[in-house]
Amino acid sequence: MIYSFNNDYSEGAHPRILQALMEANLQQNIGYSMDTHSDHAKELIKQEIQRDDVDIHMIVGGTQTNTLGIKAALRPHQAVICAETGHINVHETGAIEAVGHKVLGQPTTDGKLTTAHIQAALDWHTDEHMVQPKMVYISNSTEVGTQYTKAELEAISAFCRQHNLYLFLDGARLGSALTSRTNDLTLADIARLTDLFYIGGTKNGALFGEALIISHPAIKEDFRFLIKQHGAMLAKGFLLGIQFEELFQNNLFFDMAEHANEMADQLRKGLTDCGYEFHWDSRTNQLFPVLPNAVMEELEKDFLFSRQLTIDENHTCIRLVTSWATRQDGVDAFLAALKKLSAN
Amino acid sequence: MIYSFNNDYSEGAHPRILQALMEANLQQNIGYSMDTHSDHAKELIKQEIQRDDVDIHMIVGGTQTNTLGIKAALRPHQAVICAETGHINVHETGAIEAVGHKVLGQPTTDGKLTTAHIQAALDWHTDEHMVQPKMVYISNSTEVGTQYTKAELEAISAFCRQHNLYLFLDGARLGSALTSRTNDLTLADIARLTDLFYIGGTKNGALFGEALIISHPAIKEDFRFLIKQHGAMLAKGFLLGIQFEELFQNNLFFDMAEHANEMADQLRKGLTDCGYEFHWDSRTNQLFPVLPNAVMEELEKDFLFSRQLTIDENHTCIRLVTSWATRQDGVDAFLAALKKLSAN
Amino acid sequence: MIYSFNNDYSEGAHPRILQALMEANLQQNIGYSMDTHSDHAKELIKQEIQRDDVDIHMIVGGTQTNTLGIKAALRPHQAVICAETGHINVHETGAIEAVGHKVLGQPTTDGKLTTAHIQAALDWHTDEHMVQPKMVYISNSTEVGTQYTKAELEAISAFCRQHNLYLFLDGARLGSALTSRTNDLTLADIARLTDLFYIGGTKNGALFGEALIISHPAIKEDFRFLIKQHGAMLAKGFLLGIQFEELFQNNLFFDMAEHANEMADQLRKGLTDCGYEFHWDSRTNQLFPVLPNAVMEELEKDFLFSRQLTIDENHTCIRLVTSWATRQDGVDAFLAALKKLSAN
Amino acid sequence: MIYSFNNDYSEGAHPRILQALMEANLQQNIGYSMDTHSDHAKELIKQEIQRDDVDIHMIVGGTQTNTLGIKAALRPHQAVICAETGHINVHETGAIEAVGHKVLGQPTTDGKLTTAHIQAALDWHTDEHMVQPKMVYISNSTEVGTQYTKAELEAISAFCRQHNLYLFLDGARLGSALTSRTNDLTLADIARLTDLFYIGGTKNGALFGEALIISHPAIKEDFRFLIKQHGAMLAKGFLLGIQFEELFQNNLFFDMAEHANEMADQLRKGLTDCGYEFHWDSRTNQLFPVLPNAVMEELEKDFLFSRQLTIDENHTCIRLVTSWATRQDGVDAFLAALKKLSAN
Repeated sequence: MIYSFNNDYSEGAHPRILQALMEANLQQNIGYSMDTHSDHAKELIKQEIQRDDVDIHMIVGGTQTNTLGIKAALRPHQAVICAETGHINVHETGAIEAVGHKVLGQPTTDGKLTTAHIQAALDWHTDEHMVQPKMVYISNSTEVGTQYTKAELEAISAFCRQHNLYLFLDGARLGSALTSRTNDLTLADIARLTDLFYIGGTKNGALFGEALIISHPAIKEDFRFLIKQHGAMLAKGFLLGIQFEELFQNNLFFDMAEHANEMADQLRKGLTDCGYEFHWDSRTNQLFPVLPNAVMEELEKDFLFSRQLTIDENHTCIRLVTSWATRQDGVDAFLAALKKLSAN
Repeated sequence: MIYSFNNDYSEGAHPRILQALMEANLQQNIGYSMDTHSDHAKELIKQEIQRDDVDIHMIVGGTQTNTLGIKAALRPHQAVICAETGHINVHETGAIEAVGHKVLGQPTTDGKLTTAHIQAALDWHTDEHMVQPKMVYISNSTEVGTQYTKAELEAISAFCRQHNLYLFLDGARLGSALTSRTNDLTLADIARLTDLFYIGGTKNGALFGEALIISHPAIKEDFRFLIKQHGAMLAKGFLLGIQFEELFQNNLFFDMAEHANEMADQLRKGLTDCGYEFHWDSRTNQLFPVLPNAVMEELEKDFLFSRQLTIDENHTCIRLVTSWATRQDGVDAFLAALKKLSAN
Repeated sequence: MIYSFNNDYSEGAHPRILQALMEANLQQNIGYSMDTHSDHAKELIKQEIQRDDVDIHMIVGGTQTNTLGIKAALRPHQAVICAETGHINVHETGAIEAVGHKVLGQPTTDGKLTTAHIQAALDWHTDEHMVQPKMVYISNSTEVGTQYTKAELEAISAFCRQHNLYLFLDGARLGSALTSRTNDLTLADIARLTDLFYIGGTKNGALFGEALIISHPAIKEDFRFLIKQHGAMLAKGFLLGIQFEELFQNNLFFDMAEHANEMADQLRKGLTDCGYEFHWDSRTNQLFPVLPNAVMEELEKDFLFSRQLTIDENHTCIRLVTSWATRQDGVDAFLAALKKLSAN
Repeated sequence: MIYSFNNDYSEGAHPRILQALMEANLQQNIGYSMDTHSDHAKELIKQEIQRDDVDIHMIVGGTQTNTLGIKAALRPHQAVICAETGHINVHETGAIEAVGHKVLGQPTTDGKLTTAHIQAALDWHTDEHMVQPKMVYISNSTEVGTQYTKAELEAISAFCRQHNLYLFLDGARLGSALTSRTNDLTLADIARLTDLFYIGGTKNGALFGEALIISHPAIKEDFRFLIKQHGAMLAKGFLLGIQFEELFQNNLFFDMAEHANEMADQLRKGLTDCGYEFHWDSRTNQLFPVLPNAVMEELEKDFLFSRQLTIDENHTCIRLVTSWATRQDGVDAFLAALKKLSAN
């Protein structure tokens, strides 16, 4: 039997989430997220972030959420700065350009943007013959598994406020970032330091759903019109409300992310013990070890994972992803196979 | 207790759908609708429509599906003709214009487009100073509950092919249309007569999901790029596959729609028996009776429904919607209350 | 020889405009409208409108100017209300939709919008499932030659300010409107009552060029970025500056428009004397007489004009347009031919 | 008196162009480029390129022409590959993104794209989660004054045809490229090797105007609709026709470009003689010498030119541009000043 470390959205949802959906199934709810479950979920999230002056919208997927957050904030000539590896720059089939905005991808070594990167983009764009940078987009954890420290996020936030740039944090994998052993950020910090950010459910145990928290007044305005226009207003919006209620009751969101990190930690230790190195140094639920191709090809017979990039003719960086659903026996089997292959 | 006839998306999903999701919950599936459930669901749909040369994409919601179908088909200067009451013209917050296309809404009396309406739009748009009509969009059932007959759809289809216009049928409520007593169309007919159409799951017992069937080769090309770009590619696409598998196994899709129609038939008969008339003559799951305001206001104390339009200062056309989940006791209670109010 | 009343852009430019271009031809000017001619032209226009707190941009064509003014003012979900006959609704190949905005064309009898029309559009659009009307677009003179009185424009302006709607006046034929015998508006009135408007040069003796005057601060912001992005920033922007300098020195703009109106007055009188009626009652440089088809077809042998609409099987409404360049002998020849044909 | 080498669009037009406009000024022409001058100009261009099976559209400006050519060719998910320095990537305020397409800028050393660059972009974009590269955009001469050889253009063309990519050549400065001493391309070669390209008039002696030549049938279709929609259809289109008639009668287009190159050759020689080097090696009408800051600042007192980039704290690369209008005495004065400063 094949076991998959291919991504964190291979299974459905945590059983408690399904259970909650079952229990509410025959209730008659108001449509389009105007229901009481959605209201309650928003209250729970507001408690987590210790803020009441935010608007919260629960949206089905990450690309939608990125597109809507950017579209709501920018005028037609404005652009968004991000790491070259940023999800919006590479893996959304030009969704941001499709709504009219240039994405200014900046080369980084670790997927993390610094104020120096942002300053470089500002320096380059100086007059009306060029787009006007107006937003900074970062992900936490990043697309390569790395994380921002509180000090780093504070520096970016201060820079953005000084330069009148919006700061948008993509939290598709925020659960894993916040429960990583090396994390020193809280949801409240993130709410305080950004203009908008989202808490990813899809990759952390919900069937689907991202909770977008908007604190900047200019971006809040008429946001539901944009959701509807983009086809992102779920008729049965209560499905999102019910899921986020469950995620933020009794700590489920954080418990699931911790499980994913624990599974990743075991994989990381096992890989290190076998002498492998990592292309990007991640403490979250994505790992990027470099394997000899022979080892990789043997592992591919029993495990699913993706090839990330070619290091040299004999080595490849692969990506292993864990999740709330990753099983201990899956991890054990992988490490046993690895050990055996590496001993040869 | 309030009972709602407000819409057909107030409850979650048919229990068999939830059951199927539960059973598959811990399977590891490939993401982005490349999984085996999705493949199987497509096979089942192909059998229903008796066509193998179509592309099928399962998409979360109707506005997304409309936007994608139109965006895929039209070049920037091209426009879509529809009834003035068409969903894309009124109730999608300008989603079609947001992707660049003018919607040419034609006034109708019953929400149904005829070849005369289409011809009128063509007559008006004659040169490059005006948009170029290139697609006809119809809904079955329509936004006002009416249906197309086979003869009507054949006439529109022939006209479109003759004039090199794409024909797009929005089937958000196709289940109710096809199981209406007055229907003479089959899914196979619709596949044969249109260039693309969709089968609505959201309003007929799925948690969410619309199955778009594309038969025109030009619209098929690279469609998955457009889905992804629009943020409409569900990470856990297998959730759509599992639901449509269940909908098209053992007739569930049609059984649920028949239930909705049966409930509507009972309401229609009860309203007629009490002497009320209908603003639009519908045989599907949406009813548009005209009520004295006093009666309406009394009913509103115990039932949820929407006010559709003001007829005169004493009368209002309301909308009652039934669904797979409508309960017999809800219908009985409504009719009993109506009878009592009408007897006064 | 054929004489044309087909439009007001058949000839080049008034000889004084060409002369000014010749005289400045070998000067070295700064590009992109940052030159001293453009500055001077803006000063002259500010004097005309008795306002210094406006931004002025000179742009090559009307469709560009309409698109830019609307794009600068609206967020993605917002729409513009206009007469169904409005240029942006019919004759710009969906330019406004191409930048994402729905155009809400309201049926009128005379091409003029009233507060009742605007209120009707507002009444229809009530929530986030529909576009949000945010701008009113009118033309003066209108597409059917009619004009707004001061009282009418004041009423619309007050309504728009009360309802937080931008008011945009398309002045492609503003010269003819302002010099019409029935006009009681001044450029200063228009600047005071609108949020943005433009003064048309193309149809009044310039080679090309429209001067857009923006008084609303929100629309002013970063407008040059939008001009450049749309490809509407002329490299040799001084060509626009030189032309508008000449137009607003020594009254040339108004003198040319008066000539066009005088020619139209003669045509109107001649047509009336022959017993013909007008489909729209215009006192500007566009006339819409209804002619027997036999008369029309004879006239078409010697004169160019357009057929506007079919009145009945024997009568057609045609359009005659005069301009700064219309020759007295052209008008005389037309009226002589008409008289002869009508006498039969 | 200050003399400007700031750009090639500081003056109006060659006197023969103005003369032609004067002579035709009072003719009554049909609007929107349907006139006989435009027809004749197209015939002259077809003779130059020795092709009759092309569509030609004359358009006011370069950004418009780039946007239209790309918009006409690409579907929504498709992208255009260009040099990182490409005009569409940097200097058009995101015009291409504004119509929905990602620009894939590739780093180059000399502003010229090679098949290796194109292959790299293809290698990176492999599935529907990324945009689909579908067009290659190059400029000749490039934004840094360099040129393509016939062999280079043939290689790119063959590669594009093999990989089903459209090839678009921006010829804003094509005159200077084709008359450069190091050129071995003809207009006929370019027409044969590309799918669309344009011949720039604005930067080579016309008041304004670019002639876009489309040879690929898919891009030709309905192109005038796109022109109009974008606001790029000049009402007095005959102004473009008259200018291009004059440009391609009696060799004026080439004579003017040769003059610009001759002036540039003199500047290049003078700079070289004084011991200066060039940041990019150009044989066209743009020169990029590296000057000591002290020399540059002295020159700035009497001459206009732009600072292109900072080389080190004591040196700057400046840009000098010559044109049809550059005067011998301007060049002489510059070189005299340079010599004097360099002797110190």
